[in-house]
Amino acid sequence: MSQSHIMSAFDRDLESIQALVMRMGGLVEAAILDAAEALETRDEEIAQRVRAGDKAIDALEEQINAECARVIAIRAPAASDLRTVLTVMKIAANLERCGDYAKNLAKRSMVLAQMTALPGSTGSIRRMAKQVTLLLKDALDAYIARDARLAEDVRQRDHEVDQMYNALFRELLTHMMEDPRNITPAMHLHFIAKNIERVGDHATAVAEQVIYLVTGQLPGDARPKVDSTTAGGPVA
Amino acid sequence: MSQSHIMSAFDRDLESIQALVMRMGGLVEAAILDAAEALETRDEEIAQRVRAGDKAIDALEEQINAECARVIAIRAPAASDLRTVLTVMKIAANLERCGDYAKNLAKRSMVLAQMTALPGSTGSIRRMAKQVTLLLKDALDAYIARDARLAEDVRQRDHEVDQMYNALFRELLTHMMEDPRNITPAMHLHFIAKNIERVGDHATAVAEQVIYLVTGQLPGDARPKVDSTTAGGPVA
Repeated sequence: MSQSHIMSAFDRDLESIQALVMRMGGLVEAAILDAAEALETRDEEIAQRVRAGDKAIDALEEQINAECARVIAIRAPAASDLRTVLTVMKIAANLERCGDYAKNLAKRSMVLAQMTALPGSTGSIRRMAKQVTLLLKDALDAYIARDARLAEDVRQRDHEVDQMYNALFRELLTHMMEDPRNITPAMHLHFIAKNIERVGDHATAVAEQVIYLVTGQLPGDARPKVDSTTAGGPVA
Repeated sequence: MSQSHIMSAFDRDLESIQALVMRMGGLVEAAILDAAEALETRDEEIAQRVRAGDKAIDALEEQINAECARVIAIRAPAASDLRTVLTVMKIAANLERCGDYAKNLAKRSMVLAQMTALPGSTGSIRRMAKQVTLLLKDALDAYIARDARLAEDVRQRDHEVDQMYNALFRELLTHMMEDPRNITPAMHLHFIAKNIERVGDHATAVAEQVIYLVTGQLPGDARPKVDSTTAGGPVA
């Protein structure tokens, strides 16, 4: 049996914490997809389930934080192990925020169900939601495998989410210009889209933590941020 | 000289980290106020300064994280001290997000400077900005003084910010309905308002960390969240 197969007490602790992180990731991905479905199908029951489910996500973050503090206290990990534990806490904080966005999406879907539907928009949002959950999944897989290349790939792909958001922003403006009755639903949809785009940013933040963990350095500003709505982009 | 005046090595380390947090808080407060001023006066120079200044805020967060990791590694703090160090890292993360919001506000102020001004709105936003920077300041003061009562006060006052946001949301809807040319600037202003409201949420998060530190428990859901825009509120 080679040395590398002998697990230390610290490794065992870390492994059980990582299992919690993966479970949290799974819940968050499901919440985002379910919320997007609730929005598209105007299904209040699914929306309610997502809203209620956020408590479990928050509880997992608290459990992860408590476990990490316990491991630091009793194992007094060396520098690189300590870095890993602190990274886990940061990843959990990112996932918790994504859970909040899913809850918010579910809430707004219930408001939107009472308003005129804007053709096409909820489909675009569902596609964005699908894309960001894939980014989140890959970022977490990259963490478990300590795979800096996959993490870099996540960073690059967040780009596409930004582009989907920009296209939707323009689409919503058009609806608003066409008919003032579209303004309120379009503003809600715009918020939803922005929040989903932020989930992509959190997936990127997780990916950057992975790169930091593997290489010892946070990536620079290499990844150009493309939100043309703050760059004088879609000006009507 | 009483026992309580003798500082341990850990206390000295913590004190110097707390000084960094307070400096970070000062920079964030100034950034938010400056960005709101840039928006109101259409002053591109101030906006540029805020955008550039975010790097210093990010660097402080990194420095705080590195110092905290160092303290944990070399002092191996006991449970309650460890909790304090982990709280400091969480507070720094909250401040970093607020810095991002200020940067984003500055960016959008430059886009808005090219568009029709909507009467009154930028003044309302400046008042909101003033209010949230006070909340941030009080939350940090509560942290330094371990003052759970002041922290609870911050939580309650975040309410007023939520109400200011709701009023502005309605105001912006009115502008949009009146004239389609107002739609694009109103959407930008709406984002800005939402981001400032989020700064208030981060101040509340800091206050809740203080309560956790002092009482050992996170406050429950006692504080009702009043964002009437997701509660079927201002439906046009």
